[in-house]
Amino acid sequence: MERKQVLSYADRAELPKIHPLASKLLKIMEEKQSNLCVSADVTSSKELLQLAESLGPKICMLKTHCDILKDFTPEFIQKLQAVADEHNFLIFEDRKFADIGNTVKQQYEGGVFQIASWSHIVNAHAVPGPGVVKGLGAVGKPLGRGCLLIAQMSSQGSLATGEYTKAVVKMAEEHSDFVIGFICNSKTIEKPEFIHMTPGVQIQAGGKVHVDLLLVRCGRPARIYCFFVHQVSCFMYAGM
Amino acid sequence: MERKQVLSYADRAELPKIHPLASKLLKIMEEKQSNLCVSADVTSSKELLQLAESLGPKICMLKTHCDILKDFTPEFIQKLQAVADEHNFLIFEDRKFADIGNTVKQQYEGGVFQIASWSHIVNAHAVPGPGVVKGLGAVGKPLGRGCLLIAQMSSQGSLATGEYTKAVVKMAEEHSDFVIGFICNSKTIEKPEFIHMTPGVQIQAGGKVHVDLLLVRCGRPARIYCFFVHQVSCFMYAGM
Repeated sequence: MERKQVLSYADRAELPKIHPLASKLLKIMEEKQSNLCVSADVTSSKELLQLAESLGPKICMLKTHCDILKDFTPEFIQKLQAVADEHNFLIFEDRKFADIGNTVKQQYEGGVFQIASWSHIVNAHAVPGPGVVKGLGAVGKPLGRGCLLIAQMSSQGSLATGEYTKAVVKMAEEHSDFVIGFICNSKTIEKPEFIHMTPGVQIQAGGKVHVDLLLVRCGRPARIYCFFVHQVSCFMYAGM
Repeated sequence: MERKQVLSYADRAELPKIHPLASKLLKIMEEKQSNLCVSADVTSSKELLQLAESLGPKICMLKTHCDILKDFTPEFIQKLQAVADEHNFLIFEDRKFADIGNTVKQQYEGGVFQIASWSHIVNAHAVPGPGVVKGLGAVGKPLGRGCLLIAQMSSQGSLATGEYTKAVVKMAEEHSDFVIGFICNSKTIEKPEFIHMTPGVQIQAGGKVHVDLLLVRCGRPARIYCFFVHQVSCFMYAGM
């Protein structure tokens, strides 16, 4: 008879083909017993730092939108990095890169934000084709960064469904030296090396409690969104 | 017998259902006899202003990537707006918005760039569903701005094909109070109210000459890309 076995975060962190950054994330998740990624969609760097300070101990990841901050500076980034180091969480800039390779390279590395220099993880849409991953990878791989591909979106009428989602998964498998997982609503692939991130608005029951607790603690319910880094149910069959 | 009639830019500018910004663009195209949009992917605002100054008289539109400029400032934007006014071209920030409505609203209006305050035209991916257009429209419509939806991409392995492209066109038709046209490789719809923009790399023969001329004049061939705002072949049948 077949037997399903669910790997722990710690088990997954040690898988032979795991990406070093995915391994690091899984170790943080194991250590803190938290799969929580907080997205604080605030518009001032002071507020963002306060949130990172107060929620830091409870999260494995902080999701940012640097381009909605009205007062972004390199000094702010230094402070954010210090908080991330202190509380041991990763930074995920939710940039949703979606251009041709040469352009995303410049957007990732350069400009005012220099995202590659501070964000452990970024995400990208697969719609431009594999060039988007190659372009980002050319910048991110030497820095040990990782990328999440957007396989599905929870927004109404999203076109990231069916064949589109399948193509995203294929693209991830073909670029697993840089793509560490997915933004999705459901599990897209049975490979425990990949991280699956699901918007909190999709979370039911147990998850919802965590969200509410955080919202209460933080007192800014309208502007805080939570993502959960899912424990992918990893089915391993006896005898394999 | 049916007879095909191609409308001039001037004719299209006067169509009853034309968006005011599309009308303005078509009038500029008619006046300057130019369908050329130049994308100067330079990383300093000084270089970008120089290009805008030198190419301004020949173009109907300048395409920017504000997030690759290492020295973006509000003062630079004021200067760029002055050049655009002087030489009568529109500014198109090629941001490729691709998030949920609430997020793109903030990315379009706020942050360091405040794109909505200076860019006549922006573009967006349809992958998040209609919320992306609604979010951008909430900011852009009161300012008289317009949006191009990315219906196709010329990059290899793009997922913007077939049913995806059809869904983009439908989304545009349903939001024609803000969506003024498409980024595409071929004509997507037989409505002369919509603008079709095609990457220059796809341009053959005649178009290519223009690109080469501009590159020579400018002396920075590796970093200048040209887009053409296409004269959509508008088929009107006699008797209709």
